[in-house]
Amino acid sequence: MNEFELIQVLTRQTPKRRGVLVCGVGDDCAILRGDKKDILISTDAFAEGVHFRRHWGSWQSIGAKCLRAALSDIAAMGGQPKYYWVSLQCSKADVPKVPRLLYRGFHRVAQKAGIVLAGGNLARASEKLSVTLTVWGEVFKNKALRRDGGKPGAVFVTGSLGRGAVAVRRKKIVLPPARWRVGQWLLKSGCVSAMIDVSDGLLADLSHIAILSGLDIAVQGAKIPKARGATLQEALTGGEDYELAFVVPQNKLKKFADLKPAIPVTCIGNAKRGKGRVSVDRPITQRGFDHYV
Amino acid sequence: MNEFELIQVLTRQTPKRRGVLVCGVGDDCAILRGDKKDILISTDAFAEGVHFRRHWGSWQSIGAKCLRAALSDIAAMGGQPKYYWVSLQCSKADVPKVPRLLYRGFHRVAQKAGIVLAGGNLARASEKLSVTLTVWGEVFKNKALRRDGGKPGAVFVTGSLGRGAVAVRRKKIVLPPARWRVGQWLLKSGCVSAMIDVSDGLLADLSHIAILSGLDIAVQGAKIPKARGATLQEALTGGEDYELAFVVPQNKLKKFADLKPAIPVTCIGNAKRGKGRVSVDRPITQRGFDHYV
Repeated sequence: MNEFELIQVLTRQTPKRRGVLVCGVGDDCAILRGDKKDILISTDAFAEGVHFRRHWGSWQSIGAKCLRAALSDIAAMGGQPKYYWVSLQCSKADVPKVPRLLYRGFHRVAQKAGIVLAGGNLARASEKLSVTLTVWGEVFKNKALRRDGGKPGAVFVTGSLGRGAVAVRRKKIVLPPARWRVGQWLLKSGCVSAMIDVSDGLLADLSHIAILSGLDIAVQGAKIPKARGATLQEALTGGEDYELAFVVPQNKLKKFADLKPAIPVTCIGNAKRGKGRVSVDRPITQRGFDHYV
Repeated sequence: MNEFELIQVLTRQTPKRRGVLVCGVGDDCAILRGDKKDILISTDAFAEGVHFRRHWGSWQSIGAKCLRAALSDIAAMGGQPKYYWVSLQCSKADVPKVPRLLYRGFHRVAQKAGIVLAGGNLARASEKLSVTLTVWGEVFKNKALRRDGGKPGAVFVTGSLGRGAVAVRRKKIVLPPARWRVGQWLLKSGCVSAMIDVSDGLLADLSHIAILSGLDIAVQGAKIPKARGATLQEALTGGEDYELAFVVPQNKLKKFADLKPAIPVTCIGNAKRGKGRVSVDRPITQRGFDHYV
């Protein structure tokens, strides 16, 4: 049973909507209906030995990386990040030095993103450090870019792919790109019908859009913007890139082509009505990162 | 440096209010201003080897315990719990059996509390399981019972104390009491000026109210309602009881005495204007649970 099958089993009996909850399990964030705006909430865990190792970089850079990665879920829906909560578990030997450095990393990112620490939890861990971040973002009512809104058209990606995989290969901490501004810009453009952040690998993440939107997506290997030092395999299936992948429907392509995004945006394939398949015109050996495969 | 000193250092530069955030770090939950209601958000971590051991009970009971404990923070402000998020880290060896049983425990409590799973995160852990729960509750605008609202009067506690300590001593998982209904009832009574849940030990938790409200609290040992098998020391300083401790101001005592709470509520001492001291008329050896002392 892989990670996504397990999640489906665990959340089978869970209503996807209830009260002000308009989108529950299954997307980057939960969407909760406010009066003027919708609220986006997401929670993300980072564990020593799984997501990072302590000698790969400073604690400050590890803190910054975790918060940037958590904010990526807000960016993926076109939201504006506002608040965050830190649940930190660390051993007695690490106190107080490690939490102070980690928080310095959090503060640095928070300042850049204009977000405020709203609370948290501090508990002892037996040995290895782990941190869960909860983030709160806001988006115009009923406008969040979901995974299930995709319509036939072209598929795009921001920045370049494979940075995360290269960092893991080189045993370095790399700061995820800050995509919340371009995410909001994409939402406001009115040209995007579905969006996701590339955290488990492009093909795996496009699969979510394909399945939930009823599309077949064909990716062209030659068009993939590869990060420096990354192989095509790494760009297609490596995790932790935190770029945005999105679908522009056919009737918006002309308008979208005339816009000037602040960062490079590349067309990497197309989407047709279909059964949730993602194909690529190159041989690849795996589809993406899965915590349990 | 103890846990609370460390939290103060880590959150020193954090604004306590900003935008819709009317109460940030320092209380049971963050309070965010909605249009009709205020939103309460809290995050809580539970780690194997620190908060529980796997042979102490079934995974279902561990799941139920964690969610009940997390909901206690909503109860402590008089809120109504609504949604929750699960961030679970567990090893490959535990998948899929352990998450399925844990979630069964979550679902059981969620059903009783009338709350809905709104999202989460599943990630591999090296070995030991850990779970962070984020909970969302609602409360009438500007009515949440905070730690800093205490006025001179009498101090009360719900139920009995020391159950958590007895459970740890006997190496058993014990389900925290469900206090969200009585918490809401206490809020609606209009008789309570400050409240907290007893999670780190009565004296330690009363200290938060005393310091933040500018009170001195005198506890009478003879009045403490001890749980079956608990010593006075355990009732005063044992953690994980999840009962509610609250202050009824002088001018509301008569009204409060005429009310009929659904569960036993005991007067355990009094509060006067002061400097944040908590005293007890019995010798005790420690003040409460601290993750780093």
